[in-house]
Amino acid sequence: MTELSRADLHTSVSDPVATSMNFLNEIAGRYPDAISLAAGRPYDGFYSVGDIARYQQSYVDHLRARGLGEDRVRGLLLQYGRTNGQLGELIARMLEVDQDIVVPADSVMVTAGCQEAMVIALRALCAGPDDVVLAAEPCYVGLTGAARILGVEVVPVPEAPGGLDPETVAEVAARVRARGKRPRALYLVPNFSNPSGISLPVAVRSRLLEVAGEQDLLLLEDDPYGLFGLDDEPRPALKSLDTEGRVLYLGSFAKSCFPGARVGFLVADQTVVDEHGGRTLLADEMSAIKSMLTVNTSPISQAVIGGVLVESGCSLRAANRDKLAFYRHNLRTLLAALEEHFPQPDRDDRGVRWNVPGGGFFAVVDVPFAADEKLLELSAEQFGVLWTPMSFFYADGGHHALRLSCSYLEAEQIAEGVRRLSRLVAENA
Amino acid sequence: MTELSRADLHTSVSDPVATSMNFLNEIAGRYPDAISLAAGRPYDGFYSVGDIARYQQSYVDHLRARGLGEDRVRGLLLQYGRTNGQLGELIARMLEVDQDIVVPADSVMVTAGCQEAMVIALRALCAGPDDVVLAAEPCYVGLTGAARILGVEVVPVPEAPGGLDPETVAEVAARVRARGKRPRALYLVPNFSNPSGISLPVAVRSRLLEVAGEQDLLLLEDDPYGLFGLDDEPRPALKSLDTEGRVLYLGSFAKSCFPGARVGFLVADQTVVDEHGGRTLLADEMSAIKSMLTVNTSPISQAVIGGVLVESGCSLRAANRDKLAFYRHNLRTLLAALEEHFPQPDRDDRGVRWNVPGGGFFAVVDVPFAADEKLLELSAEQFGVLWTPMSFFYADGGHHALRLSCSYLEAEQIAEGVRRLSRLVAENA
Repeated sequence: MTELSRADLHTSVSDPVATSMNFLNEIAGRYPDAISLAAGRPYDGFYSVGDIARYQQSYVDHLRARGLGEDRVRGLLLQYGRTNGQLGELIARMLEVDQDIVVPADSVMVTAGCQEAMVIALRALCAGPDDVVLAAEPCYVGLTGAARILGVEVVPVPEAPGGLDPETVAEVAARVRARGKRPRALYLVPNFSNPSGISLPVAVRSRLLEVAGEQDLLLLEDDPYGLFGLDDEPRPALKSLDTEGRVLYLGSFAKSCFPGARVGFLVADQTVVDEHGGRTLLADEMSAIKSMLTVNTSPISQAVIGGVLVESGCSLRAANRDKLAFYRHNLRTLLAALEEHFPQPDRDDRGVRWNVPGGGFFAVVDVPFAADEKLLELSAEQFGVLWTPMSFFYADGGHHALRLSCSYLEAEQIAEGVRRLSRLVAENA
Repeated sequence: MTELSRADLHTSVSDPVATSMNFLNEIAGRYPDAISLAAGRPYDGFYSVGDIARYQQSYVDHLRARGLGEDRVRGLLLQYGRTNGQLGELIARMLEVDQDIVVPADSVMVTAGCQEAMVIALRALCAGPDDVVLAAEPCYVGLTGAARILGVEVVPVPEAPGGLDPETVAEVAARVRARGKRPRALYLVPNFSNPSGISLPVAVRSRLLEVAGEQDLLLLEDDPYGLFGLDDEPRPALKSLDTEGRVLYLGSFAKSCFPGARVGFLVADQTVVDEHGGRTLLADEMSAIKSMLTVNTSPISQAVIGGVLVESGCSLRAANRDKLAFYRHNLRTLLAALEEHFPQPDRDDRGVRWNVPGGGFFAVVDVPFAADEKLLELSAEQFGVLWTPMSFFYADGGHHALRLSCSYLEAEQIAEGVRRLSRLVAENA
C-alpha cells in the first residue's frame, strides 16, 4: 500500500497552528468534564434548528417581493451564481445602518466564512516573493494559518499593553522595507481583539490611518466582536473613518448570527488600474481568486444570512440585543470572578494580573510560570479547567500568559472555572 | 484615494483563466438571445426552491432517528463543526452502493465544492518548489486555476484522440524528473472529460494504475459526469480498481444534485508516516489545510446533500434516473444535429469533424479555422450561437477546435444551436 512521508506534505510546513489547535481539541476530548475557558465559539442557545428554514423563507420572500419570478429565484438558490455572491446590497445596507460605513454594494464579496476572506485578501495583495503582510501580535491563528498555506511571510508588530501603537507599525514597515521586502498590509482586530481582548482608542485609529497612508499600507480590519461592547461607547470602524480607501474590511457572521452558515464577507472598494489605464473595483479583481478557491459561496447558506438581514431591517445590532446582554453578563462575571479568586495583595505578590477588556469574548491573564501545553494537561486532569496558552498566538512569545474565553459557557460555569484556575495558580505560583 | 496597480496584484498572475471566463460571461451578457452551447452548468428544472427545506428536514430526521438529542442536532447544524465535515458515513456508503468503492468514512473530507478539494489536494501534495502536478490536457480550468493560486506548476500530458495514454504519462513524468522536479500526482477526469468528452477504456485504467505505481504518482480522479453515460457499459472508477492506494478521488454534487449546495468531497485513504513512525490518514492530515481555507464546509449545505443521500438510500444513481434520461436525450440530440447539419462528403472536404463521447455534457468539434475569441464574438453577434474555444483548456493549443455543451438547454435549442453553428462554419471554412 502507498505510504506518504509527512515530510513530503505541505502540512509539515503548516504544522505549528494545526498542532496547537489539535492538542487543545484532543485535551478537551479526553477531559470532557473540564470547564473550557478555552473555547472561543459563540453560545449555542440563541437559535433552534427550525430557524434555518424560516430565515431561508424570509430571504426567498424578499426576492419574490422584489419581483423575481420562480425560475429566477430557483436559479439564484440552486445554480452556480455570481462569484462575489448575492448579498452585496443587504450587507452594504447593514454596514451603513450599524456602522456608518458607506460603500457600494459591488465592493462587497461574500465569502465561505471570514477565513476565506483572509485567504483571498492575502493572495490578492501578496503577488510576489517580496510581498509581506504585517500583523498585530498576538495574532488570530486564522491569519497566520492562511498566510502559511499561501507561502506569505507574516511580520509581527508587537501590541503594547494599551494596544497597537501606530508608530511601531511605521517602524516595523520601515524595517521590512530596509531588508528589501514590501509590506503590503497590516492585519488587526481593532475591537476586543482575539486573543488579547484589547480595543484601539479612537485617536489611535485616526493615527493608524495616517500611518497607513505614509507607509503605503492597506489595513485589513477584522471585526467579529465589535457588536459586543460592555458599554455603548462609540468604537468607529476604521472603515468608517477611511476617507482615503486604505481599509479592507473583513466581516464575519459567525458570532452575530451563527458559525454554521459559514458566511463572511470582504469589502474592497479600492480602485485597481491596469497597464492600459483601465479601472476596476478591487472586489471585482479579487473574484478571479475566489472563483478558483470555492467558485461562489453557497447560495443556500447566503439565503440564511440574507433572511437574518431581511428580518432585522439590515441591523445586526438590532438582531443581537439578547446576545449582547448575555455576553456582557458573561464578561462581567469573568472579570468579577478573577477579582474574587485572585484577591489583593496576594495576587500582586504572586505576579498575577489580567487586562480588563471593554467587551468581546476574551481576557488575558499573566502568570509567573510557563503556561504551556504540559501545564494545560495538568490543569485539565487535576483541576478540571481548560484555557489557551497565549504562546499559540505568537511567533515566539506569550509563554507566561493564558487566554480565557467567556463566550460559550453559562455564567455559573465561568465563575467555577475561574475558581478552579485559581487553585492551579496557587499550586504553581 | 488609494489606487492599486494591477501589476502589483496576484490576479495579474492568475490572468489567463479568469480573462477567458470573463470574456465568455461578458459575451453571453451582451447577446442574451444567443443560444449558449458554451454553458456547462447542469439543467435547472429538476428541482424547486421548496426542495431545500425538505432535504434539510430529511437529514435532521435522520440525525434524530440515530438518537441524537435536540442540543446535539442544533450544534451540528449551527455551530463550528468537525473540519472534515459530517457526511463521511453517508458518502462512504454512497461510494460503495453506486461504484463499489470501499473506503473508511474517516477518509472522506467534505469540501466547499469540488474546487476546494482540488486546492487542498494540490496544496497538501505540492509542499516545495520542486513539486509539480501533471494534468491531462486539454484540462478543466478549475485545476489550472487552483494551481496558479498556490504557485504550483502544472505539466500538461497531451491526450491522444482516443484519450490519455499511460505510456505518455510515464514519459512526461520521467522528463519532469530529468529536469530536477518531482511529479507528485496526475489530474484527470476519466469519465466523459470536461472539456474533451473522452472516457478511458477499462484496460487503460488498469495500466494507468500500474504506471502510477511505477512512477510513484498519485492519481487525482475527478468524476463529476460518471453517472451520465449514454449506455450502461461499466466504467469502473479508478478508485474502485485501486488496490495500492494510488488514487485520491474528488467528488462533486454539482451535477448529481445541484451546484448551489457548494458541496464536494475528497477521498484520501492513504497512510501518512511521520518522522517518529506515527501513522495518520491522509484525509486527517489534510484537515490542517482545509481549516485554514474555509474552517469547515457549511453544515447547512451539508444537510441538504445529506437529505438527498438519506432519501435515495445513498444512491446518486437512483436519485438521478430522470436526469440521466434528460442528459442522454440531449447528447444524442447534439450528435444527431451535428450529423444533420454537417453532412458528408461536404464535412470531410471542409475538414470538420467531432468526437462521439459515450456520455456526459460535452463534445469537441475540429474546424479548419481559428476558433478564437474574435470568432466567438462574431458567432454571437451574427449567428446567435455561443461555444467555448478549446484554446481556453490548453497552455498552448486547441486553436482550431471548439467545445459544445448540451447540459443546460432543452433539446430543440440544441438542434437550433448546431444549425446556427453550421452557418458560421459554412461562412468561414
